[in-house]
Amino acid sequence: MLSGSRLEIDRALDLFLTGAHRELIAIDSALTEVSIALKEFLAGGKRLRPLFAVAGSIGAGGSADDPTLFRAAASLELLQACALIHDDMMDGSDTRRGAPSMHRRFEENHRARSGLGDSENFGSATALLLGDLALVWSTQALNQAGLNDSQLRAVNPIFDIMRVELMAGQYLDIHGGSRPQMSVADALKIATFKSGKYTIERPLHFGAALAGADMELLTIYSAYGNPLGIAFQLRDDLLGVFGDSSVTGKPAGDDLLEGKRTALVAYAQERFSTSESQEFFELFGKKNLTMDEINVMRGAIQSVGAVDFIEKLIEEKTILALEAIKNPRITSAGRELLSELAIRATQRSA
Amino acid sequence: MLSGSRLEIDRALDLFLTGAHRELIAIDSALTEVSIALKEFLAGGKRLRPLFAVAGSIGAGGSADDPTLFRAAASLELLQACALIHDDMMDGSDTRRGAPSMHRRFEENHRARSGLGDSENFGSATALLLGDLALVWSTQALNQAGLNDSQLRAVNPIFDIMRVELMAGQYLDIHGGSRPQMSVADALKIATFKSGKYTIERPLHFGAALAGADMELLTIYSAYGNPLGIAFQLRDDLLGVFGDSSVTGKPAGDDLLEGKRTALVAYAQERFSTSESQEFFELFGKKNLTMDEINVMRGAIQSVGAVDFIEKLIEEKTILALEAIKNPRITSAGRELLSELAIRATQRSA
Repeated sequence: MLSGSRLEIDRALDLFLTGAHRELIAIDSALTEVSIALKEFLAGGKRLRPLFAVAGSIGAGGSADDPTLFRAAASLELLQACALIHDDMMDGSDTRRGAPSMHRRFEENHRARSGLGDSENFGSATALLLGDLALVWSTQALNQAGLNDSQLRAVNPIFDIMRVELMAGQYLDIHGGSRPQMSVADALKIATFKSGKYTIERPLHFGAALAGADMELLTIYSAYGNPLGIAFQLRDDLLGVFGDSSVTGKPAGDDLLEGKRTALVAYAQERFSTSESQEFFELFGKKNLTMDEINVMRGAIQSVGAVDFIEKLIEEKTILALEAIKNPRITSAGRELLSELAIRATQRSA
Repeated sequence: MLSGSRLEIDRALDLFLTGAHRELIAIDSALTEVSIALKEFLAGGKRLRPLFAVAGSIGAGGSADDPTLFRAAASLELLQACALIHDDMMDGSDTRRGAPSMHRRFEENHRARSGLGDSENFGSATALLLGDLALVWSTQALNQAGLNDSQLRAVNPIFDIMRVELMAGQYLDIHGGSRPQMSVADALKIATFKSGKYTIERPLHFGAALAGADMELLTIYSAYGNPLGIAFQLRDDLLGVFGDSSVTGKPAGDDLLEGKRTALVAYAQERFSTSESQEFFELFGKKNLTMDEINVMRGAIQSVGAVDFIEKLIEEKTILALEAIKNPRITSAGRELLSELAIRATQRSA
């Protein structure tokens, strides 16, 4: 069922991108590059947010055969493209899904054609604009999805708050990262807004709104989405330190290189001895960590029990989420999708 | 009439920002800074785009007493905030309206509290997110404006294409700036999308759509908006080189420091002798130009007749625009506003 939905989402995305491409090249053929870059960027990705939207709608009694559902859900993938392109800029990431990140792609393009001016600036400016364009496209895709007036009225405020929360969560993330201490509780709060609500709870509400669901069902979805969203982010935190780079498409120990202050790192920091802490934070955020240094840091995190703690938290939160969807208000087709998605969001290697 | 409309727009913007502030601090009190920074940023500005939207609606027979008109028009000022914040990042501008640009503001804030990590990165990341948030707010403000279904249906596609054109124009601008040559025609095309359509034509269409106008009126608005939009941008080009920094709030000769390839510069380049060209382009884009160097460059541009050419073009385009609004399809109240706005857009010193 999930793979069928994914195909429908991809089809809806293609349909939108075809129209968007036409609109761009009607402005100027030089925009072909822009269109291709975004299309290639969007070819990757797990489509998690659209899938949660689809599940949210079906769980609320929405039809799985309604093409407007997939077209509306696809808009969430365009929002995600904006988030990733801009995130990579903020983190100074060179790669995304094994390929150059958007700013690096256009930096290389500028250098290859010996463009006037600084190649790095050109890359950043272009990625900034392409992220903005993806954000604009996300609204446009929703407007073009073929929804009726009451669907639009129901879904717009959710889409709005979802995007506000995303930007707020990102701000709290970089703001928190600039302070000397971050507690596990702070890190979990950031995870809630930056990732949990944005990836799971709000997409579910988005889908529910399309199907005309009431407040009660939204609350049930929150009881599933909130803990699962945190579990999703915690899995991300583990992958960011321990993930296999051939699977994640990111450098080994990426979060260590970037100095990302996750719940995993916060937990370890709270338990490090003074000397362990000193040793760890001398390396933390160094762009050119050696594999040996990464392994020392991984060992330090593991030795204070941080990995066990996070794995246990993921398990607990996932169980809470699965409990919540036993509620009979959710259709059985929806429950099935939500169970599959809970596994996919928390037991993944990329 | 214009100043009354401006007050209404400011009031509508305040109303939106009050709600948006509440939404942000409900997420986390650390977002107070974000809310204040955007509110202060929005306090400046000429409200040109909302004013054109208001004029577009009134010219189509819309009521000047309708508060939803001003609330919808205010969304264009939020879009403009995004454009300016991100533009300043791309240009590496230190100031905006005499105050630090958004990325510099947060860079200084980070430095003042001795934040962890690189202050410049923190400033850029924050400005990136605040621009994104302003873009999200622009849609949210429109959704909250109290429009009816048919108004929303009419205005959404215009708002979408307007934002696509803005990002496309910005891309063509930096893309064009990275090529060794730019013709006057290329520069005018960029001006059309980046600034003309975005500042004048599309806001007029936006307002017209709110009032339920037909295609014929949109075409008349284009006949006014297109030439006036170019004239607006050409005035900007002149101010970017010759503007009084105490009035523009930007450094003297800002476009020369930034190496901005405008129609003004393109015209001069086409007429420079080889040695003039060499001398000019050795200085062009140097961040630390002295006042003497700026004056040499200003003189070079002037001596080949580029200023006269651009002033004449502004005049011609403005006359074309004023011709177009003689059309009786436009209400007389609308025509009055559009005449005033034509002057304001092209005969300004900031």
